[in-house]
This record gives sequence, C-alpha cells and structure tokens, in this order.
Amino acid sequence: MRVYLDHNATTPVRAEARAAMIAAMDVVGNPSSVHAEGRAAKALVEKARAQVAAAMGAEGADIVFTSSATEAAALAMSGRELAGAAIEHDAVRAWLGANLPVNGDGHVQIADPAQSTLQLANSETGVLQDLPAGLALSDMTQAFGKIPVDFIGSAVRMALISAHKLGGPKGIGALVLRRGQEVPAQIKGGGQEMGRRSGTENIIGMAGFGAAAEAAAQDVANGRWEEVAQLRDILQQALEAGENKTIFVGKSAARLPNTLCMMTPGWKGETQVMQMDLAGFAISAGSACSSGKVRASAVLRAMGFDDTQAASAIRVSLGLETTQDDVLRFADSWTAKLKKHEQRAA
Amino acid sequence: MRVYLDHNATTPVRAEARAAMIAAMDVVGNPSSVHAEGRAAKALVEKARAQVAAAMGAEGADIVFTSSATEAAALAMSGRELAGAAIEHDAVRAWLGANLPVNGDGHVQIADPAQSTLQLANSETGVLQDLPAGLALSDMTQAFGKIPVDFIGSAVRMALISAHKLGGPKGIGALVLRRGQEVPAQIKGGGQEMGRRSGTENIIGMAGFGAAAEAAAQDVANGRWEEVAQLRDILQQALEAGENKTIFVGKSAARLPNTLCMMTPGWKGETQVMQMDLAGFAISAGSACSSGKVRASAVLRAMGFDDTQAASAIRVSLGLETTQDDVLRFADSWTAKLKKHEQRAA
Repeated sequence: MRVYLDHNATTPVRAEARAAMIAAMDVVGNPSSVHAEGRAAKALVEKARAQVAAAMGAEGADIVFTSSATEAAALAMSGRELAGAAIEHDAVRAWLGANLPVNGDGHVQIADPAQSTLQLANSETGVLQDLPAGLALSDMTQAFGKIPVDFIGSAVRMALISAHKLGGPKGIGALVLRRGQEVPAQIKGGGQEMGRRSGTENIIGMAGFGAAAEAAAQDVANGRWEEVAQLRDILQQALEAGENKTIFVGKSAARLPNTLCMMTPGWKGETQVMQMDLAGFAISAGSACSSGKVRASAVLRAMGFDDTQAASAIRVSLGLETTQDDVLRFADSWTAKLKKHEQRAA
Repeated sequence: MRVYLDHNATTPVRAEARAAMIAAMDVVGNPSSVHAEGRAAKALVEKARAQVAAAMGAEGADIVFTSSATEAAALAMSGRELAGAAIEHDAVRAWLGANLPVNGDGHVQIADPAQSTLQLANSETGVLQDLPAGLALSDMTQAFGKIPVDFIGSAVRMALISAHKLGGPKGIGALVLRRGQEVPAQIKGGGQEMGRRSGTENIIGMAGFGAAAEAAAQDVANGRWEEVAQLRDILQQALEAGENKTIFVGKSAARLPNTLCMMTPGWKGETQVMQMDLAGFAISAGSACSSGKVRASAVLRAMGFDDTQAASAIRVSLGLETTQDDVLRFADSWTAKLKKHEQRAA
C-alpha cells in the first residue's frame, strides 16, 4: 500500500470534483452557442466561476479561467517586468524584472508593491508571506485550499490559482483580477472569458475546479487542516528524535499546515526521493516541475543555504487523507535509510 | 426529445473518451514527479500523445498539447505574420498578415505556401481545401475526425487540432509540428511539452483526446461518415424540394460529409436559430464562437455573398449519432417555419 506525501506537487481528485466532472461530460453544448445546449454549457461555466470566486473571497473580482496557474502567470506578467524574488515558482520567475531580497526565514522585502509580485505560500518550504496592500500580483496557487484566502480583503490586484492543488483536476487554473484591472489578451479568437482569453472552455475542468474549490474552502473553514498540521508536527518530531543533523526549513516561520521541508547535508534529495519511492512513499526534492533536473533548489539558495544543503532537501507534503500511521511509517522508513546512508558514508 | 445538429460547434463526448477520462481521474501523480505516481501520470500523457499522432498520420511529428486549437494558433502564429484568407477561424485571423483571395467556391489561392496558412475544412461551409506542399500552417480542427487526415503526407509544417470536434472533451487541443519546426514558448515555467508550453498537464483531457482521436480515426476508416454524408444529402434534398430561393453554399465543392450551410435571404440566420431552438433543434448561424454577435459571416462575405445573403445563413452539422428521422423532422419543421416567415413578409 503506497503512501502519497507529495500533495504540493498535485492532489488526488476529490469526490465532489469527480462527480461534477462526470456530470459535465453529459453537457453537450458549446458555451458560445445560443441554443439550449449552449446555454446549459454556459451556465456550468458561470456556476464554476461563482464557486471559485466565493471560495477565495473574490466576489466582485473577475475570474479568468486559464489552463493552469502557469498560463495565468504569463497572462498577468508578460510585458510588465514586475519585481519578484527567486523563491517564486518558475512560472512566475520566467517573467520577473528586478530581483527582490529574501531573508533567512524565506520572507521577501518589497519596496514598491504596485510593481511587485509575491507568492502567498512557498511550494517547497510552505513559508507564508504577509502581502502588502496594493501588491500587483500574488501567486496563491499553493495556499488556496489549505489556508483561508481573502482576495478582496488582501488588497492585491491580481492572483494566480490552480485547481489541482486543492483536489480539482490538472489543466485548469485562473487569473483573478480586481475589477478594473486589465490584462492584454494573449490567446485571441472567439473572445471567450470577456475577451481576455479565447478558446472553447474546458467545461469539465471548470466544473471540477468549482466543486473542488467549494469543498476545499469548507474544509479550511472547518479546521481540517489543523489536524493535518498536527500530523505534520508529529512527523517532524519523529524525524527529529532520531537525528540531529537534519535542518527543518521554515520551522520557526508561519508556514502551510501540510508542508515539511528538510535538508540532510551529504545525502542528496534526489537519492532520498528514489529510495523512499522504492519503499512505497511518494515525496519530492524541490517542486514537481523542477524535479528531474539536477540543480539545487533556487528557493533554498535564495534563503541563504549553500549548494550542498540545498541539494539535500526533500519536501514531504501531507493531504487531508493522510493518516498518523502514514507519517509514522514514513518516519521509520526514512530514519532507517538515513542510518544506512551514514554507515555507507562513514 | 431534442435533436442536436450543431456538431461543428462541438460534439458530445463519446463513450471511449468518457471511459478514458474517468480512468484518468484515478491517476494521482504529477507527470513531472519522478516517483511511481508521477511516472504513471507521465505514461498517460505519452499514451495520449501517441494516440493523437497515430490518428492524424503524424507519427514522427511532435504533438504539443495545448488548451485549445485557439491556443495552438497563438503558439504557431504569434510574431509570424503568415498570409491567410478571411475564411479562416477567428483564432487564426487574429494573427494574420497579408489577406489571401477567396473565390466563389470558397477556395483560397496561395502564392507563397511557406509564409501562409490555410484551413483544411471550413467550419461554416464545410468546404475543403487542397493544401500546397510546404504550407506553413493548416487549421485541421474541423476536418480531423471527419475525413482522413495525413499530416506527414500532406507536407504541411504545422497543424492545429482540437479534441472537442471529434468526441473528446472541450479545453484540450494541440499544435502538431513537423520534427525540426520550432515555435517560441509563450507560456513559460516548468518546461513541460519539451519546453514549448509549460504548465501541469491536463491529463484527464489528454486521456479523453487520445481515446476520442483513436476512435474517430477508426470511424473515418470504416466509412461511417459516408453514411452521414448520405443523411446530409437527404436533408438537403428535402429542404430543396419545398423551396427554390434558398442557396446551398458549397454544394458543388468538395466539403465535409456532415455540413450543410444555407442562406435564405430576408430571413435572418439568428432568427432561424432561435425559432429552431424553440422547436427542439440545435443549429447555428456562423461558427459557435461568433454566435451571439450580430455581424454577418466573414466567411460568406469573403466568398462574394452580400450582407443580406450572409446574414441569412444557417449551418446544420450532423454527427455520427444523427438519424434519418432527425434530419427529416428538421426539414419538416424548418420548411413550416419558412412558410410562416414568407406569409409574414408578404
């Protein structure tokens, strides 16, 4: 029985999203068609839009559905040269102008919010940021669905989100725009999404996103992630008990309830991922998108860790279905492998 | 019981695609993750890629999955200023340079194939084009799945396709590239799709696209669209029998087996669509993406029809599940409404 502890890479599709997607498969029409079949498809799109807006406190904002948070980043950032830090996701880093400083806790200092971008939570470390009012853009992808998100209250102008981080399907995300904020269209044609992003709508994905966002927001409100945080802390304590050399990144900072990033210098993160995979546990070294690449985590380097430390990092990220048995089995298995590694290295 | 006759706008999800998508919902991993869950997701992506390539004779070409043919058009065309005709889809027209001439049959004359784009089939009229060797780009969206498509044999450098025109889900398409043809990435980040198009993959959509493309190609090979063409011809004859003023567009040209475009000057297409919708039939006036807009079809204008003619056009597009009863009921209902229209107009 495998244990999936890589929820920051992607999450299992939750039951509500699955049911909504299967129902959407029977909706025949094109949302742009004016006949009854088209109107039914359009209604499904608008229901999903309202669900997503409600789940992230974005009523009154515009939800522009995209194929991913990555596409939303391109739509929000291309041509803007926003300042941002090296801890941002690659999809944001691809468009950055000036480089913002990061301190040892992983916090970013912003001089000009209106020309800057800042993630709400880091995917590798889970470290949370305080978003300054008037911030141009925040990547909320990793936070949305795990902690309360209040887009309108945050006074941020634009936000990136993705369905597959909160129990929705992969391949659907959104750019959230404060009403009045404009972005020039990059994908042009039929004029869907109020002209901001053309292409026949992914109605199955949108239905899944809407249902997942609604359910995820309820779970957040019901405190279910506090239980996950307890499991994460149990895991951290179990790992700390057997080992002193390991560094738990962001331990003293406010961070996501489910994320544990740890470095054991001298033992490569990629090796740990492979060994734990063979033992039945799915974890990652760095973010999923950059896994497979050999370079050390840019996030950890920006926080001041050296290459050897950063290259030894792994990320264990829990989900709502993770059990205490899962994390204790992981701790036992990882600790045993560490012992073997130390014996070989000695 | 409603009759859906708007298959060029979008098609019902076919059983093979539905089953593949539901199975894909249980694939937990991120295709970029190196662990077993990630590798299973990656395998699903690559299976879909192979299925799509095989279905369109594109083995040896690169299939770059996108969220739509519209996104694929932006990826292929942005910054290239390809020449093209006014009969192209809006998603292609958005990026055109020089305007190519169209004759009365809807055929386009191309001077420089390497710097031009030409659709394989028109979505409104169904008219087919002969693609010159070395053509830079062809929008094969409307043809793929209805007639045999041989990408490699066609000697076209790039092609656009979409799943939802052939029984796959909405929100997934592809840009097909002859090996060696490059396009600059527009959506950047994790480096998915060989760096050409980043973002976590829509694995559910890809699974549905692959299964639908495979099944659709088999249907084409098995001659199932010849039966559809017979029904279309039955429909045309039934409509012609009661009416002389109506113009059947592309009647003498080679066209898609399922498409009937007709103009009844003086009776607005939009009005016909609404009246037929109330009577239980889904059809369109122009392409779905431009429905809701009041302007006359650019396609028909480019073929030399005047505004009054173009504004009176409707498109009836059949699918594999369309029956003879469906088309005869449509013909009866439409003819009765035409009579009423003429009485009012007289």
